[in-house]
Amino acid sequence: MPKMRIDEMEKRSYNVFLKAGLPEPDAKIITQVLLTTEMRGISTHGFIRIKKYVECLLKEGIKKDGRYELTYDSPVWAAMDGMGGAGIVLSHKAMSLAIEKAKKNGVGIVNVKNSHHFGAAGYYSGMCAEAGMIGISMSNGDVLVAATGSREKTIGNNPFSYAAPAGKFGMINFDIATSMVSDMKIIALQNEGKQMPDNWIIDKNGNKTQNPADYLEGGVLLPFGGYKGYGLAMMVEVFAAILSGSGITNEVHAWNTDKSASGNVGHFFMAIDIAKHMPLEIFKERIEKMVDTIKSSKKVSGTDDILYPGELEYTKFKKCRESGMLEISEDCMDAILQAEELLH
Amino acid sequence: MPKMRIDEMEKRSYNVFLKAGLPEPDAKIITQVLLTTEMRGISTHGFIRIKKYVECLLKEGIKKDGRYELTYDSPVWAAMDGMGGAGIVLSHKAMSLAIEKAKKNGVGIVNVKNSHHFGAAGYYSGMCAEAGMIGISMSNGDVLVAATGSREKTIGNNPFSYAAPAGKFGMINFDIATSMVSDMKIIALQNEGKQMPDNWIIDKNGNKTQNPADYLEGGVLLPFGGYKGYGLAMMVEVFAAILSGSGITNEVHAWNTDKSASGNVGHFFMAIDIAKHMPLEIFKERIEKMVDTIKSSKKVSGTDDILYPGELEYTKFKKCRESGMLEISEDCMDAILQAEELLH
Repeated sequence: MPKMRIDEMEKRSYNVFLKAGLPEPDAKIITQVLLTTEMRGISTHGFIRIKKYVECLLKEGIKKDGRYELTYDSPVWAAMDGMGGAGIVLSHKAMSLAIEKAKKNGVGIVNVKNSHHFGAAGYYSGMCAEAGMIGISMSNGDVLVAATGSREKTIGNNPFSYAAPAGKFGMINFDIATSMVSDMKIIALQNEGKQMPDNWIIDKNGNKTQNPADYLEGGVLLPFGGYKGYGLAMMVEVFAAILSGSGITNEVHAWNTDKSASGNVGHFFMAIDIAKHMPLEIFKERIEKMVDTIKSSKKVSGTDDILYPGELEYTKFKKCRESGMLEISEDCMDAILQAEELLH
Repeated sequence: MPKMRIDEMEKRSYNVFLKAGLPEPDAKIITQVLLTTEMRGISTHGFIRIKKYVECLLKEGIKKDGRYELTYDSPVWAAMDGMGGAGIVLSHKAMSLAIEKAKKNGVGIVNVKNSHHFGAAGYYSGMCAEAGMIGISMSNGDVLVAATGSREKTIGNNPFSYAAPAGKFGMINFDIATSMVSDMKIIALQNEGKQMPDNWIIDKNGNKTQNPADYLEGGVLLPFGGYKGYGLAMMVEVFAAILSGSGITNEVHAWNTDKSASGNVGHFFMAIDIAKHMPLEIFKERIEKMVDTIKSSKKVSGTDDILYPGELEYTKFKKCRESGMLEISEDCMDAILQAEELLH
């Protein structure tokens, strides 16, 4: 895969967002979030999205003025009206505020409404882990997934993440969508002419299918783990959207298709400051003990290593930081070039 | 199924726990929790457990003095040392405290350590929904489930629940274990001489199996939804046990086998008072809209109704309350009689 220097990528991204109209601090934030996500190897939520973000900024589906309002504020809980701004920037500010509240009062919760695609959920929970806190982040999204028993797109592929500081293991960082797989995985299989397992989607008639082509012909993603995944998708809808006063289910706009429509999504961020209750070192020792115990257990045949959530990403991040280089796929390189092109 | 008057069942349960040595208020609490759970139709976590609880009380695996200590207390977060007491009683008190904190300050979190089996997770989150709040409850447990890649019992079947008030729908109440199924389901299939799906357990060698008999011969439960369920089980371990300062993974005692051992489990309870941020009526209207939208979507063939989490339980509870009668299985009746017998 082609490689690029981290600092070069950082500069290019910053310039793109600045040219697209974001205020300087916001262009810095969105660059930092995308860069970290890319360094963690989560390339589906990294710079490959840069062109779409720029298109949204140019077509005003994402407002570029960087304005937002705190519509509710208390020592431990605040609510933010994102006023149609950039989801990643708003989320970074919201979680920073949650961390500030937690540092003072033990717990901090910030809801955001009227926001846009917030990128990788694990970035924000990870901010907490880096601050010695436990963090949770969630966002609803446009409907993509069938509720159990439904054959329509009835609920978002609502991402959920938690993270915790983990001593020698860096951080535990769990970041999932509530569907079985992302639609990108299905489309990739289709392009390769392969079949998929029969529990990823249902076709437009609500039947099981192994044919990836059925997805783009009215098929619907299934929640992971059956009704349990559906129930978790609904939890995200309740905490991130309803409690925020944001759009729910089909009130959310699919930003991938209409780039001039505001996203209308909501988020939920929570930080808990461990040190208020116990020495952080003891917490980390206990996490290490848990992970060590699990990792040293007997493995099923064919498994080299039992992983903790976020381990692959943590390893990739460290390697990347040491080398100073970023692997960039050709699709991602194209997206960057096209974003730059749009702003010429 | 045999039926019993609710008030009769209530009296019998109260007398059992009083005779077993619990203080009056605690006997009342545990009765109320088991009764509500039973009325919701969650018979696996209702009175069928009464004999085991009594045995634990008699053998001091559950301390009966009702003592506990607040080892940390702040306006929004407290930590409780359960001192080996009854998990259900401690959890009721802990969530009551979380609700009290949330009523004053918007958010309330209470951790519990050194506790015992807490019954149905959804009872405590449901207390929040009834108080017009959003609630979360979690507890770790003794190791029963294989972490992804492991072939040993490495993590608990850690229950997780959230609940929210839902207007005409009563409450949303999501209550799951993080394994594919409970072991009781496997043993039931074995007794019926049936096969099971190949993703419920792995056998003692870490291989897939459809033979339920493999479970009791060293088989291990699998997490629901693959690595996502494993990651959620770990979340419960972090929030409920590590943050509480309680036992983790194999430090937890299997209360079903050794009734004189303290459980050593931890819990996490959280309440968020919706009305601090938005009128409760608006929140409920929005929940109703979400549920109505999902329920009225097109169904897959063979599905009569698309359910929201907790709908079956809410319907059963209402019917039960109206009739004043409780359906009690013969196994459950036996457990009650045996508990009474033990105390003669």
